[in-house]
Amino acid sequence: MLSFESDYIEGAHEKILQRLVETNREQLSGYGADHYCESAKTKIREACCCPQAQIFFLTGGTQTNMLVIHTMLKPYEGVVAAETGHVSLHEAGAIEAHGHKVIQLPQVQGKLCADDLRKYLEQFMQDENHEHMVYPGLVYISHPTEYGTLYSKAELEALSGICREYQIPLYMDGARLGYALVSPGTDVTLPVIADLCDVFYIGGTKVGALCGEAVVFTKNNMPPCFLTMVKQQGALLAKGRLLGIQFDTLFTDDLYVRISRHAIEMALLLKKGFRQKGCTFYLDSPTNQQFIILENAEAERLKEHVVLSFWEKTDETHAVYRFATSWATQKEDVEALLELF
Amino acid sequence: MLSFESDYIEGAHEKILQRLVETNREQLSGYGADHYCESAKTKIREACCCPQAQIFFLTGGTQTNMLVIHTMLKPYEGVVAAETGHVSLHEAGAIEAHGHKVIQLPQVQGKLCADDLRKYLEQFMQDENHEHMVYPGLVYISHPTEYGTLYSKAELEALSGICREYQIPLYMDGARLGYALVSPGTDVTLPVIADLCDVFYIGGTKVGALCGEAVVFTKNNMPPCFLTMVKQQGALLAKGRLLGIQFDTLFTDDLYVRISRHAIEMALLLKKGFRQKGCTFYLDSPTNQQFIILENAEAERLKEHVVLSFWEKTDETHAVYRFATSWATQKEDVEALLELF
Amino acid sequence: MLSFESDYIEGAHEKILQRLVETNREQLSGYGADHYCESAKTKIREACCCPQAQIFFLTGGTQTNMLVIHTMLKPYEGVVAAETGHVSLHEAGAIEAHGHKVIQLPQVQGKLCADDLRKYLEQFMQDENHEHMVYPGLVYISHPTEYGTLYSKAELEALSGICREYQIPLYMDGARLGYALVSPGTDVTLPVIADLCDVFYIGGTKVGALCGEAVVFTKNNMPPCFLTMVKQQGALLAKGRLLGIQFDTLFTDDLYVRISRHAIEMALLLKKGFRQKGCTFYLDSPTNQQFIILENAEAERLKEHVVLSFWEKTDETHAVYRFATSWATQKEDVEALLELF
Amino acid sequence: MLSFESDYIEGAHEKILQRLVETNREQLSGYGADHYCESAKTKIREACCCPQAQIFFLTGGTQTNMLVIHTMLKPYEGVVAAETGHVSLHEAGAIEAHGHKVIQLPQVQGKLCADDLRKYLEQFMQDENHEHMVYPGLVYISHPTEYGTLYSKAELEALSGICREYQIPLYMDGARLGYALVSPGTDVTLPVIADLCDVFYIGGTKVGALCGEAVVFTKNNMPPCFLTMVKQQGALLAKGRLLGIQFDTLFTDDLYVRISRHAIEMALLLKKGFRQKGCTFYLDSPTNQQFIILENAEAERLKEHVVLSFWEKTDETHAVYRFATSWATQKEDVEALLELF
Repeated sequence: MLSFESDYIEGAHEKILQRLVETNREQLSGYGADHYCESAKTKIREACCCPQAQIFFLTGGTQTNMLVIHTMLKPYEGVVAAETGHVSLHEAGAIEAHGHKVIQLPQVQGKLCADDLRKYLEQFMQDENHEHMVYPGLVYISHPTEYGTLYSKAELEALSGICREYQIPLYMDGARLGYALVSPGTDVTLPVIADLCDVFYIGGTKVGALCGEAVVFTKNNMPPCFLTMVKQQGALLAKGRLLGIQFDTLFTDDLYVRISRHAIEMALLLKKGFRQKGCTFYLDSPTNQQFIILENAEAERLKEHVVLSFWEKTDETHAVYRFATSWATQKEDVEALLELF
Repeated sequence: MLSFESDYIEGAHEKILQRLVETNREQLSGYGADHYCESAKTKIREACCCPQAQIFFLTGGTQTNMLVIHTMLKPYEGVVAAETGHVSLHEAGAIEAHGHKVIQLPQVQGKLCADDLRKYLEQFMQDENHEHMVYPGLVYISHPTEYGTLYSKAELEALSGICREYQIPLYMDGARLGYALVSPGTDVTLPVIADLCDVFYIGGTKVGALCGEAVVFTKNNMPPCFLTMVKQQGALLAKGRLLGIQFDTLFTDDLYVRISRHAIEMALLLKKGFRQKGCTFYLDSPTNQQFIILENAEAERLKEHVVLSFWEKTDETHAVYRFATSWATQKEDVEALLELF
Repeated sequence: MLSFESDYIEGAHEKILQRLVETNREQLSGYGADHYCESAKTKIREACCCPQAQIFFLTGGTQTNMLVIHTMLKPYEGVVAAETGHVSLHEAGAIEAHGHKVIQLPQVQGKLCADDLRKYLEQFMQDENHEHMVYPGLVYISHPTEYGTLYSKAELEALSGICREYQIPLYMDGARLGYALVSPGTDVTLPVIADLCDVFYIGGTKVGALCGEAVVFTKNNMPPCFLTMVKQQGALLAKGRLLGIQFDTLFTDDLYVRISRHAIEMALLLKKGFRQKGCTFYLDSPTNQQFIILENAEAERLKEHVVLSFWEKTDETHAVYRFATSWATQKEDVEALLELF
Repeated sequence: MLSFESDYIEGAHEKILQRLVETNREQLSGYGADHYCESAKTKIREACCCPQAQIFFLTGGTQTNMLVIHTMLKPYEGVVAAETGHVSLHEAGAIEAHGHKVIQLPQVQGKLCADDLRKYLEQFMQDENHEHMVYPGLVYISHPTEYGTLYSKAELEALSGICREYQIPLYMDGARLGYALVSPGTDVTLPVIADLCDVFYIGGTKVGALCGEAVVFTKNNMPPCFLTMVKQQGALLAKGRLLGIQFDTLFTDDLYVRISRHAIEMALLLKKGFRQKGCTFYLDSPTNQQFIILENAEAERLKEHVVLSFWEKTDETHAVYRFATSWATQKEDVEALLELF
């Protein structure tokens, strides 16, 4: 059975497992106070050209979004996000459970537009009743978005500019950041992100790690007592080494970039194949998630051979399906999948 | 200076003040355990034809919405509301601050439509990922709505029917309920509401009380230890008599209905006058809030003579303004206002 | 039936009711933006000799404690209180429900001792694991305490000094503050409190108001967007005038002090009578709450004639009972009560 | 440098790493829906003789405590714990941050006594004001306790009996459960725990796993939508396999028991050595944590050779230090440590 269900169906890149084995008996202090965490942070700072970056390792994306948003907002503030943002829809209300509204704005291909953001902020500031409303305290974007699309550098600059004008931090969810960085044609690099965003995270879980995300505060703006709040939310691993060793490995010899590139090569192969087979694309994604529209019967037939991921109904007889590649995707599997069409 | 700013610019109906004075030195137990609270509850049960109703007195609308929603929802549930609902926009994030998402659906003239509700619920149930989403746990409507409009009995029946089909309680925010009950042509009575809704509140603050709202649980469904949770949220008055005496008075000799009727008479007079003056209505409201569109210069001119309430911009040169009547509105003031146009 | 059940069994001082009646038809803006609120604030600033004081009116004690503590603490902080403090025991977990631990220290006659506070803070700071613990972010005291006892000025200075040394604000719960200020022998005045505390509240509910507490931030330290957070917690009255008029009246012509003095006179009469009757005092209270130990059968006999307030069991055959006087206590009732012993 | 700092200074048991490597390229569904998680659950059910057990894998102890307590309590309830319980002191206020009070009772050698529990519950139920207090909704114990001590079966039966009498679930924190199960002389087995407790967890992080705890609901009482609430708290791993494979390995061929036994053998060797050297024990611990009192200068001298864990000051010149063994402790290290005394 083939599977393109997601980019987290395999374990970890073998280099990571190897390092876990090699370092296993080293006796290290807990809670992230070990030299592998330190080393990983140093390497990430370098990769971001951001020597002042403050970095913290967490285990998953929802956890990271919740912690960043919760610790950066005041109680009377909410987070602004596209209505299709992961925090808006697919985190089981994690943001609200920690006290904050997700202020949902329209999306275009999964992206938040600078114009919509500016219009919302202008209206909020002008509203005579805004003392009775939720204040915007953070702007959330994902890159790649939930639909695999990417912001251009110019789009990020526009969003960042508005955020600075209104003194609202900009936060980027990088659950699949590796796949964005190596997408052909992108002009958004890690240093660009570190420059334009106030905080972002570098996703590990979906880019070769067993688990783990690296939160990067770029403006010397990590909230005070962040570790205590991580502990308070049950998110502090006793064996912090598990995260430190993984990120140290991913940021050694460009591993993070190299394995991301493989995923994109596989995605482009898949995309080209879909196009040749005459498939209908839901939208044009330049990253590792490809969305195509299938007729229901066709989907049923495919499911006998491949695990695929239902996305949403388009009408009574059609639906969108997602095909995800990753660092672990085999070229033979892509070819076998295309044979099925 | 005239004022049509809101329906809470005066104190309380004089009969209420009189009863507060008359009963002032009676020694009564605290926290709502006094005979005035009991008497008020009995009268409300009768007015609702709902002998099993469980009633609790609170001080304000946001407090009531927050407490009802917070105590009726499980941690993984959210409340469904129109995007213009008071809980969606104008309660400073009270629902989210207590852990729950407001799931916003489209509105038509401030109302939640049965079709939109059904479509949302069907999609939610079908979504393969709904374990990662917020479950709908309550449906919120306001009557009158934030735009003064009313549900018909048939519309309420449709909403109530869907809620029962999906086993989700229906909650009505009745901050201005009196003004709905006496609106000409409505077929929605207190007993109808008690029948179709699982919980609702009868607004006092905006209908003649100094403060106070009466929450009515109609299906023997008051959450266990409700009083303790009211206390926990800082909403339990030591001198519960303040609320009991007010509601006892409002529900004696139909006072609540009689003073509401006056407000509607004044609103209809105002509406008729606006129509004669050729004003542009934002929508057709049958209750005590009238919304008209004014040209900016016109609005500035009026503000020299009358306090009015800015609602929202319609374009660069026009905006919506609200004119509210109440139990306390003087006919001379309505006439004087109309003279200004 | 006599009643010494509490100091909130009657309505409000008649002067307050009179002012509510006189001002009833004045049209005023909502949410505390009226001139009575302004006037009351001015008078309180004067009474405190604290021209920079920022004042906000709320409706009850638990609500006030919750809001002050919640808005002054960061998420990783808790409030330090005596184990008998109101916030520790009798607020249904309001502080925890809003995310914060009550760090309980020992009490002596209901009071927090400077030595215990210092010892706790020293240990906390020395603890190598304190990043995994709740940080002390506020110190809570009540004056009078829950047992009617009072801090001396020297005791307050000691607590305040430690708080400043550790940069932790000091908060005084003044639910019954009036009865403290006029207690014979006290050297703690409103200006002393405003000087030594960072925030405190002047209780109205138990000192002649229908409802209402005045929070005073003394060091230009009201949390930003405080009104929005009050709204978010459901604690913002639409008719803010209800609180403004009451406090304006209480702080006109020393009414607050004069009615407090009456309560203390009645309490001292009661205390003297108890002493003459040979009653066993639980402790020596100089304020309006008197605690005596009664044998169970004796208590049962008394309950036929007087409503009294069970406090706690001392052994199988005895218990502590509280007798509270107030601004409304009648001298005849005190005499009648003493006749029963 | 020797280290007895904690039982989480090494990585994972090699057998676990081996299985992670062997299974690495298997394509598995996310979020715990894989066959390794299923297999691990089956083996745990068997080890507990509890066929109806519902099991969920989480990553850490504080996360597990917070989730179990938060999902099992109603908003008006708190958790009862010994004042030295991990939830009382060392989880950065995680329980309170999620809305619940930790009701602290006295401890004896880290344990909660049945008599203290009964006395508290009796008083609570009798208290006339308990509607204004936090209701006890769960009883928390840890086994081994934070001081390494163990409950006997009779002690657990007594606690369990009281809990059932008052219909309050009993929850056991088993962060180091393996080390309890194999302690010489204990009569508390996994089936005994599954019988007497309503929910407990089997600690992995401190007993050979990289991370991971297995929560076991024993009475068909897992809260509805538990997975959604885990997601909402940011505690749901995308690659659930990481936990499933680890627990599947730990519960294959008794690995969990065998590696725990090694730790206890090392602890007993250490204990015997300390006794021979004339060390002063802080208390008598039968598990992998040994607490001894050291004179300050002695401690300073030792720190040049061994990483040890400061526990608490006993007086100006002495303090308690903890020495922890684990599945990974080397006999040579124990011997080298003893040489230092």
